[in-house]
Amino acid sequence: MASTMQAVVKAQAAPGVEIREVPVPTPGPGEVLVRVQAASVCGTDLHIYEWDPWAQGRIHPPLIPGHEFAGAVAALGAGVTAVKEGDLVSAEMHVACGKCLQCRTGLAHVCQHVRILGVDANGAFAGYAILPETNIWKLSPAIPHDYASLLDPLGNAVHTVLAGPIAAKTVAITGCGAIGLFSIAVAKACGATRVFALEVNAHRRAVAAEMGADLVLDPGAEGVAEQILETTGGTGVDVLLEMSGHPKAMELGFSLLRTGGRASLLGIPSRPVELDFARDIIFKGATVQGINGRKMFETWFQMEALLAANMLNLEPVITHRLKLSQFAEAMKLLQSGEAIKVILKPE
Amino acid sequence: MASTMQAVVKAQAAPGVEIREVPVPTPGPGEVLVRVQAASVCGTDLHIYEWDPWAQGRIHPPLIPGHEFAGAVAALGAGVTAVKEGDLVSAEMHVACGKCLQCRTGLAHVCQHVRILGVDANGAFAGYAILPETNIWKLSPAIPHDYASLLDPLGNAVHTVLAGPIAAKTVAITGCGAIGLFSIAVAKACGATRVFALEVNAHRRAVAAEMGADLVLDPGAEGVAEQILETTGGTGVDVLLEMSGHPKAMELGFSLLRTGGRASLLGIPSRPVELDFARDIIFKGATVQGINGRKMFETWFQMEALLAANMLNLEPVITHRLKLSQFAEAMKLLQSGEAIKVILKPE
Amino acid sequence: MASTMQAVVKAQAAPGVEIREVPVPTPGPGEVLVRVQAASVCGTDLHIYEWDPWAQGRIHPPLIPGHEFAGAVAALGAGVTAVKEGDLVSAEMHVACGKCLQCRTGLAHVCQHVRILGVDANGAFAGYAILPETNIWKLSPAIPHDYASLLDPLGNAVHTVLAGPIAAKTVAITGCGAIGLFSIAVAKACGATRVFALEVNAHRRAVAAEMGADLVLDPGAEGVAEQILETTGGTGVDVLLEMSGHPKAMELGFSLLRTGGRASLLGIPSRPVELDFARDIIFKGATVQGINGRKMFETWFQMEALLAANMLNLEPVITHRLKLSQFAEAMKLLQSGEAIKVILKPE
Amino acid sequence: MASTMQAVVKAQAAPGVEIREVPVPTPGPGEVLVRVQAASVCGTDLHIYEWDPWAQGRIHPPLIPGHEFAGAVAALGAGVTAVKEGDLVSAEMHVACGKCLQCRTGLAHVCQHVRILGVDANGAFAGYAILPETNIWKLSPAIPHDYASLLDPLGNAVHTVLAGPIAAKTVAITGCGAIGLFSIAVAKACGATRVFALEVNAHRRAVAAEMGADLVLDPGAEGVAEQILETTGGTGVDVLLEMSGHPKAMELGFSLLRTGGRASLLGIPSRPVELDFARDIIFKGATVQGINGRKMFETWFQMEALLAANMLNLEPVITHRLKLSQFAEAMKLLQSGEAIKVILKPE
Repeated sequence: MASTMQAVVKAQAAPGVEIREVPVPTPGPGEVLVRVQAASVCGTDLHIYEWDPWAQGRIHPPLIPGHEFAGAVAALGAGVTAVKEGDLVSAEMHVACGKCLQCRTGLAHVCQHVRILGVDANGAFAGYAILPETNIWKLSPAIPHDYASLLDPLGNAVHTVLAGPIAAKTVAITGCGAIGLFSIAVAKACGATRVFALEVNAHRRAVAAEMGADLVLDPGAEGVAEQILETTGGTGVDVLLEMSGHPKAMELGFSLLRTGGRASLLGIPSRPVELDFARDIIFKGATVQGINGRKMFETWFQMEALLAANMLNLEPVITHRLKLSQFAEAMKLLQSGEAIKVILKPE
Repeated sequence: MASTMQAVVKAQAAPGVEIREVPVPTPGPGEVLVRVQAASVCGTDLHIYEWDPWAQGRIHPPLIPGHEFAGAVAALGAGVTAVKEGDLVSAEMHVACGKCLQCRTGLAHVCQHVRILGVDANGAFAGYAILPETNIWKLSPAIPHDYASLLDPLGNAVHTVLAGPIAAKTVAITGCGAIGLFSIAVAKACGATRVFALEVNAHRRAVAAEMGADLVLDPGAEGVAEQILETTGGTGVDVLLEMSGHPKAMELGFSLLRTGGRASLLGIPSRPVELDFARDIIFKGATVQGINGRKMFETWFQMEALLAANMLNLEPVITHRLKLSQFAEAMKLLQSGEAIKVILKPE
Repeated sequence: MASTMQAVVKAQAAPGVEIREVPVPTPGPGEVLVRVQAASVCGTDLHIYEWDPWAQGRIHPPLIPGHEFAGAVAALGAGVTAVKEGDLVSAEMHVACGKCLQCRTGLAHVCQHVRILGVDANGAFAGYAILPETNIWKLSPAIPHDYASLLDPLGNAVHTVLAGPIAAKTVAITGCGAIGLFSIAVAKACGATRVFALEVNAHRRAVAAEMGADLVLDPGAEGVAEQILETTGGTGVDVLLEMSGHPKAMELGFSLLRTGGRASLLGIPSRPVELDFARDIIFKGATVQGINGRKMFETWFQMEALLAANMLNLEPVITHRLKLSQFAEAMKLLQSGEAIKVILKPE
Repeated sequence: MASTMQAVVKAQAAPGVEIREVPVPTPGPGEVLVRVQAASVCGTDLHIYEWDPWAQGRIHPPLIPGHEFAGAVAALGAGVTAVKEGDLVSAEMHVACGKCLQCRTGLAHVCQHVRILGVDANGAFAGYAILPETNIWKLSPAIPHDYASLLDPLGNAVHTVLAGPIAAKTVAITGCGAIGLFSIAVAKACGATRVFALEVNAHRRAVAAEMGADLVLDPGAEGVAEQILETTGGTGVDVLLEMSGHPKAMELGFSLLRTGGRASLLGIPSRPVELDFARDIIFKGATVQGINGRKMFETWFQMEALLAANMLNLEPVITHRLKLSQFAEAMKLLQSGEAIKVILKPE
């Protein structure tokens, strides 16, 4: 094993990153060293790159970002038994404390003291990454290898779609970034009968159709709500999956939701949002769920099962494959809206 | 049986009501005529009386209001078999269509075409009232007679409290009108371990304590949120029951809710409300439920069982008992904030 | 409209039926007369035909059997508004009382006083049938016309499969009669990742494969349990759908069920069954559900949605299409095990 | 700290135990040494003492039994942070592997590789005990000190009672050993409206009444089922909690269960049991749950909350308090049926 590795480093409290050669870290007790084979880029990474207000408040440089990846186990710290050298793995990058009420009652995905690797500590945009054994996910050989670095955002989609009944349901998805697009495929694979995808970006709308959406609409166009209501016999959709965090999308989404329906909110509004609670939630007898991360590890088992059964085609969402050293180019592609999911490969 | 009866009549599209002698109605096929023994007053009745914008948009005079009552079956329309003359009854006053998706899937309480007796058709502020057989609730003899006219608002409370797990949970109730106060008793009877009641009105706070709240606080005072968070070990409450519809109470309530908690919203905001969805719902992984009416008739069975087992003391909420002819006085007592629940008896 | 119609009549308390010309019945208030276009045959009809002990205890001749059908509305009784003449319809043949605890709490499918048309009163093996308006199901034009007489048994399958989470789950189905076979298609359409079908009859095993089962096995063969356990990584299946009612199948099924799994039992054992409750249910922390009929009408909405979205191929299960007058031949085909689902058309 | 301690030792593969002085163990990394203040005796301990066939197959002497206890933290192994010296604690004695499907999906209480301290490794009938940090439960100071050694069996009761809705429900409990008796108190505290306790032992029936059962019956007497059915208006009970493991009790219990009810089975039958699945489960649309252990750690939070709120009176179940050295006498008291719960205190 080499003693140094290539890494994307957020070196300064300022925009940008550096591509550097840094020492390969050594796994401590209960830790696993993984040789990264592919890492994909999330919107969070763009925030860190651009050094926006959220990043300024949360990130403490120097930091290696990156929280979506797959690779091979390179070395084991003391006491690790869950994997062995050479195993292909990914990992849940939310490191839960294991001791709070939430962790001890099946809600570790909303742990009160969560640390996110790639955000609060070094992540996976590097030749190697260190993970706690508890967070390692050993990959089934049946999972398409190219999808293995996408389990984090795919898990967000699976968590959201399966947060309530989906079979035989009509579904509106507001916002078709990567997670929204994945959600289309997951919902269809799990028995949703009609999926309506709403997205302002024309390229993403095209991908939404490829992912299997039954009807793809531009929410900015005329009569969108009317069209969906008509298609559902005037009733509205059974399930709303809110993936944009945009106030207008939320308003539109809730207007589409049928009385007694479920709204699962994953998109994160950047500021408070005004909603007509009486009309949209209370009189409707609606159920609204806040969705965060992935259930540890129920979501991972579900995701693996669906992928291993070859029930999800994720290919249309992967728009670019670059070298890790092309990180800046990946950022540009995401900023332009041209890219959806970019996979980076360390050399 | 007399041919005429005393009735409270909203005769004009204007404030006020008249106390009139009107003909006793005749039950049609599938209908039941009930001699009203007690009817209690709801905030809705005050809206109708004051002729506020909501009432102006919804009510079509002439109308006999009143949707909380108990009485004795006086006559049966053709084909009625569920009750017989003399039976003591109350009724669910939301008349569901029976044919919409919601009605056919166990959600009749949010029927798309609901008609409310006492709002959309004649109700119970009269010597007699007409009800469809399907909506009649035959009273168990074990139910305290004085409580029988309170089943509508008590049902709101039972529906809200039991909309999710409550045993061994901590609960915050924002707003202690009649339904909020009933919710205290229901939550305690069903195993809530600590109930925090939040209410601006001092008289209602005193009643909240009588109903069994463990801690009663004025939300306008300093450090209320801190006090509740401290009492819950910094975690926040497991369950929020929002009974006020007030934006500040909603904001406070959500700030108290623990990560992974349940918020059940029954209070109806009069306009859109701004909420920090990211902080209060999404990152928290919270579940928010819109609650409307009572489940038909699961809530009624639950309510009857709790009352028949003598597990609910509702007495502190009944502040006044008047004659039906004193309707205007009842309105004044409610307007002044002096009254909580007023029971009216036709003569 | 003709005044008489062809009908299959169980005329005597003895084996066999007669094909007779009988008067077309007249719908009473709240009833609908339907011209039957297709009726399919259930195992129950064979019990009635053969006059086995169950039939002797339950059936009171004369009776027109038949409880699976589709047709067109021919006439309306007084007060019927849910359908109009010419509408294509099927119906839920379990007529619930509407007044018991179960009916009033969303469990009408297990009504304490249920009457089954075609069993306890005249059914659909005739030119015309009478149904209560409440039980009529108006067919979506998107449903393949040939499937419309199969909604009763398909509903059993949908009810069973969707009685708990099915997406991303492994499933064992013990018994591949019509309902078991339908369950394969429903489970696959709703996201089951691996369906193991167990059936002793070779013809039905072939159909099970056509319906989409991932692995079809003869439970009488060597090493069946071992094979399924190995395929599931030693864990066992997430979900058991018991469709045979056979003690050996139940024993095998429970042995396949993983710890923490769900067993949904629809097959009806003809006598008490011995089970190792400690090993198979208690230490496993399993959930066992008794499944009966179809949820009114949640199951119907689910079924319609899946069929209208063209997600279910039922064709392989329909082995024969005969004239209603060939009823005796249909019985022979079922007795021989050659037929699975026989559809009869009145002339 | 002393270097030796008093311990109950199962020294031989034969009936009986020895009271011995043995070395105080030293906690390894992630382990906690607790000075035992009270340990209570379970039926399992009697099996081990009597060396019955189950014990012969499971126990490998030498072993210190005992899995119900409370005490004070005496020393910490490396890396322990959850507790500090002097903390009052109890512990979940089922040590889950943390790596199987069940452990990773919220079902650690039915871990595939569970080891039980006091059964598979040394337990708590000694001056000191060693526990993994993950299993330690720090006691709230609000919990009555005398109850702290009862959390294991109380947790069984809480797990069973709260495995489904209990508020406003009628409940039959078959078998009033310690867990059945605790279940009475838990069910009443959580809103059960009527609890029927069925028990053959007269002394336990007397205690059942003290625990708050509404009706206590000897299942061997005439007309027991009729009496309960009549009390529930002919409907049967909403919830059956089976705590005996006895075939006759199971048969009786299921006959009492209403259509659509829940049966939660905790009692462990010693051999296969014959049940009329068609009548008792399938046609009833019943839900049957196998219950094992306590949910980690949801049950512990629930139990603590109920105890801290002073909602459970467990005193009647504690029939004897002895010295640890009186272990043989405790065994006799249990064999005679005189004792229910015996608490032992090391000297």
